[in-house]
Amino acid sequence: MNPFADSLKIVLVSPRNPLNIGAAARAISNFGFRHLRLVDAYEVAFQEARSAVNASAILSATQQYASVAEAVQDCALVVGTTGVGHRELQHPLHRLEVGARQMKPQLAQTNVALLFGSEKFGLGNEDMSHCHFLMRIPTRAEHESMNLGQAVAICLYELIREGDAPEFAAPMHADATGEQTELVTHLLLDALERSGYARTPATELKIRRMVRRLSLSSQDSIVWLGMLRQILWKLNHP
Amino acid sequence: MNPFADSLKIVLVSPRNPLNIGAAARAISNFGFRHLRLVDAYEVAFQEARSAVNASAILSATQQYASVAEAVQDCALVVGTTGVGHRELQHPLHRLEVGARQMKPQLAQTNVALLFGSEKFGLGNEDMSHCHFLMRIPTRAEHESMNLGQAVAICLYELIREGDAPEFAAPMHADATGEQTELVTHLLLDALERSGYARTPATELKIRRMVRRLSLSSQDSIVWLGMLRQILWKLNHP
Repeated sequence: MNPFADSLKIVLVSPRNPLNIGAAARAISNFGFRHLRLVDAYEVAFQEARSAVNASAILSATQQYASVAEAVQDCALVVGTTGVGHRELQHPLHRLEVGARQMKPQLAQTNVALLFGSEKFGLGNEDMSHCHFLMRIPTRAEHESMNLGQAVAICLYELIREGDAPEFAAPMHADATGEQTELVTHLLLDALERSGYARTPATELKIRRMVRRLSLSSQDSIVWLGMLRQILWKLNHP
Repeated sequence: MNPFADSLKIVLVSPRNPLNIGAAARAISNFGFRHLRLVDAYEVAFQEARSAVNASAILSATQQYASVAEAVQDCALVVGTTGVGHRELQHPLHRLEVGARQMKPQLAQTNVALLFGSEKFGLGNEDMSHCHFLMRIPTRAEHESMNLGQAVAICLYELIREGDAPEFAAPMHADATGEQTELVTHLLLDALERSGYARTPATELKIRRMVRRLSLSSQDSIVWLGMLRQILWKLNHP
């Protein structure tokens, strides 16, 4: 399903918190990716994440590396992430929307590594020197740094996102026919007239337009017809 | 900065885990939103989230409600989220990309509520009956359910995302001038010749094209010129 499932290697550098390792693995699974790699992970954290109740197939297959160089060895493109917009960076820095757009053609033909730094310090200069470019999630300047698990989830979502997804994922109900809508209009006008409203041509037009604005489904129009008939009956038999 | 900062009300219904409440608040702050509302929150969880070291201004201002009806009272549009694509739903269900597109014009003019259900069960039918439509993050069918904190972060990211963000957020370096590129070409050709390569017109063209493919920055071209001069000097003074 996910065309990049095998080509994307998600690399966490020096992660410290087992919850974050677990959250990254869960997002990887949610979005149909497969490969999590850890560099210099805090061993206790990894073991704890791995032994969690819901630990996924992702974590069982996770590989550990001693250095970034080894973790990205089979990748033709290496992309780093940073929460910091203002630091003096030696790399081209893209907003995530743009960086992901640049990654996709590469992912279609070669392995690509996506690096995330440690919770506290992010990627170091040495880590970044392996990167072709950096991306940042467009957080606000006053609170730039995201939670690691959330950052991984957002980057992966951007990579599988479909900008041209169809308007209705699951169209629920057929629209009411013109006949049904007009019948609702008439019964409503009748009920209003019985209730004391003056029925003028202007009122009729107003009510007709108002009923159209409801955009009733066929099914709902039947419910409305039933309710209005019941009300009319009661009005006629007080 | 965020044009929807005040109009979007993020509503967590029956959250149970303080870490998730904290993660939701952090994402709200990261993306420049302001309003977190809790319905039927597990009180201990909320107090724990609130007393965490990094508890944000968002959590201090978070309001609690006894019912969904009260929490969405001032909102003209109510949107629910669900991780479940296949359940028999009584609502229109959009992929997040589409749902967010429909929310934006409303957010520009009125209050909109975005509902997230509990970690275990999601939104119930009663909660959903307050919604105009539902959205789902496009996770894969075999592992649909996302972590609550990650789901909130992704939905908020989609709302502030800029599809037409410019290609280069921060252009790093000016390109090398034609003169610089040609000088690199010449010095490289000289070095190759001194090293024993036959200098033919065909080789010159090949090397010239190859150097252009490097797309050197002006600054990098200066570094390359320095390195090549040093190599040439050594070749000439063995």
